[in-house]
Amino acid sequence: MTAELPVVVDAMGGDDAPAVVVEGAVRAQAEGIPVTLVGDEAVVGPLLPRRNAPVLIHAPEAVAMDDGAKAVRRMEGASVRVVMREVAEHRGCAAVCFGNTGATLVSAVLDLGVLEDVDRPALATVLPNSSGGRLVMLDAGANVDCKPEMLVSFALLGAAYAEALGVENPRVGLLANGEEEGKGNVQTRATLPLLRQLPLTVVGNVEPTAAMDGACDVLVCDGFVGNVLLKAAEGAASTIQALLREEIGRRPSGMLGAWLLTGAFRRFRNRVNWDAHGGAVLLGTRGVVVAGHGRANADAVHAGIDVAWRAAQEGLVDGMARHLEAWAARD
Amino acid sequence: MTAELPVVVDAMGGDDAPAVVVEGAVRAQAEGIPVTLVGDEAVVGPLLPRRNAPVLIHAPEAVAMDDGAKAVRRMEGASVRVVMREVAEHRGCAAVCFGNTGATLVSAVLDLGVLEDVDRPALATVLPNSSGGRLVMLDAGANVDCKPEMLVSFALLGAAYAEALGVENPRVGLLANGEEEGKGNVQTRATLPLLRQLPLTVVGNVEPTAAMDGACDVLVCDGFVGNVLLKAAEGAASTIQALLREEIGRRPSGMLGAWLLTGAFRRFRNRVNWDAHGGAVLLGTRGVVVAGHGRANADAVHAGIDVAWRAAQEGLVDGMARHLEAWAARD
Repeated sequence: MTAELPVVVDAMGGDDAPAVVVEGAVRAQAEGIPVTLVGDEAVVGPLLPRRNAPVLIHAPEAVAMDDGAKAVRRMEGASVRVVMREVAEHRGCAAVCFGNTGATLVSAVLDLGVLEDVDRPALATVLPNSSGGRLVMLDAGANVDCKPEMLVSFALLGAAYAEALGVENPRVGLLANGEEEGKGNVQTRATLPLLRQLPLTVVGNVEPTAAMDGACDVLVCDGFVGNVLLKAAEGAASTIQALLREEIGRRPSGMLGAWLLTGAFRRFRNRVNWDAHGGAVLLGTRGVVVAGHGRANADAVHAGIDVAWRAAQEGLVDGMARHLEAWAARD
Repeated sequence: MTAELPVVVDAMGGDDAPAVVVEGAVRAQAEGIPVTLVGDEAVVGPLLPRRNAPVLIHAPEAVAMDDGAKAVRRMEGASVRVVMREVAEHRGCAAVCFGNTGATLVSAVLDLGVLEDVDRPALATVLPNSSGGRLVMLDAGANVDCKPEMLVSFALLGAAYAEALGVENPRVGLLANGEEEGKGNVQTRATLPLLRQLPLTVVGNVEPTAAMDGACDVLVCDGFVGNVLLKAAEGAASTIQALLREEIGRRPSGMLGAWLLTGAFRRFRNRVNWDAHGGAVLLGTRGVVVAGHGRANADAVHAGIDVAWRAAQEGLVDGMARHLEAWAARD
């Protein structure tokens, strides 16, 4: 039996790198996920524990938060580029990068490459829904101004991701401002007939409220709109928590009640804190890539590694390729 | 002193009309807002109280939820059309209609008309923000596929509405997927330079999270995107309340804590329940129009009448006209 391939993690990405990345990686490894870190040996090396430390691969450069696509193209020795090559050359099963999502996207396209029939990869996020299920939403912000054909490929990729998460025969919805067939904008009205030709269960137009209530398993949209949806949900969650804190602080019985509810509130925040769910997964590249938030803490790093590991174990990339082939063969 | 003009309310619109509309109207009138109801005398008449009842104007027809623009154009005797004519002919200070928003929009354009330099009216909603303030968001769904010039007129209309709500020198933001100048899609990148020429305080691109955190007072967007934002926030609120209920139900101390927090939870739900804030206001027509939700209950009807009354008292329509003129005079 060959050893299992590790998850390869960029130690240099994110606001609090490398400290929180190392901490999250060490925790993941302690739970049985093999991890390889990539970063500057002089900086990362001293942070590693003596026992059971992740393997460290040296990378001489690191991408900054404001480095654009051009800079990333030139920086072949940047940690994020080295991470992608480890996966491309089959020394790792998945890539996990925090911080500059644009750099992660560019590196993945350059060094891993995209699957056949994929125009551009999409970022998929998983949202909790009110009935305890999960909603795969894509594109979460990688591509604005999408042509209908791009939304079609997002549907195929998103369905493969939902399957890797354990959803059988996932129901695919198109994000719109109303569920009637004639609703939507120019883009979605051109997309819906194309989606209906896919070998997938397409439920039609879905509003955000219905999607978050379980009306579909995969929600397809333009990256501009998807990003707005995600940040509106995050903003609402913050507002609600602030209002609730304020209401609770109004009288002593509220404080006592809040004390009795401490555990419930903590679990609640963990479930609502979508960052902690491991970040977005890049779909359409020839390898599993998790793009985590720049503000990731050690919990989020651990969760991101966990998401990457499970996606790799479930054969996410093969699943995407299968869906794309089935669709291409139809022509 | 002449008597104050009443708020004119369509008694026939909404899922539970006319009962809940009459109930809400009676309550508003009891609090000192003069109200005129419009609807079928045979149906609405028996619901009115003996004392201090709102005036009732008979309308022989009513628009159904699925009546389209064409049907509404022909139905001159429909209650929603009569409501608009009461306001157009200065027998009412504002119109309040529940249910079929498209019918409200068409009737307002036909019978009230639009202000000079307004291409199409927009729907504005007010969201609570996490610091206790308010955010005017438009367009909330009346216009999809907006040209940049339409977004510019939304900025002028929204600023006038924020002023009518008591905000001095409102800060206007353009909804985008990032705050940097180069972020956004084709539509918003073409809009931002035009907004910067307005005689308004324009803060630039604003993400939903920042907007809901107080980064601007007016958030301008396409009706498709605005509708998605609104319903994503609503969906997140429902999900969060469901998760919280579930967490609280897990153990006895949680039940006791929840009992102690009953009042806080109720006030919290009222603040988060954005429908109860009185529905969306139509901006750009020659009269105040509040378009309430089809699922409005008596509280929401009361709140909608209150919003309409205050907007009329604050001179919302004159304020919009002033902003539009100042901008037109600049050319």
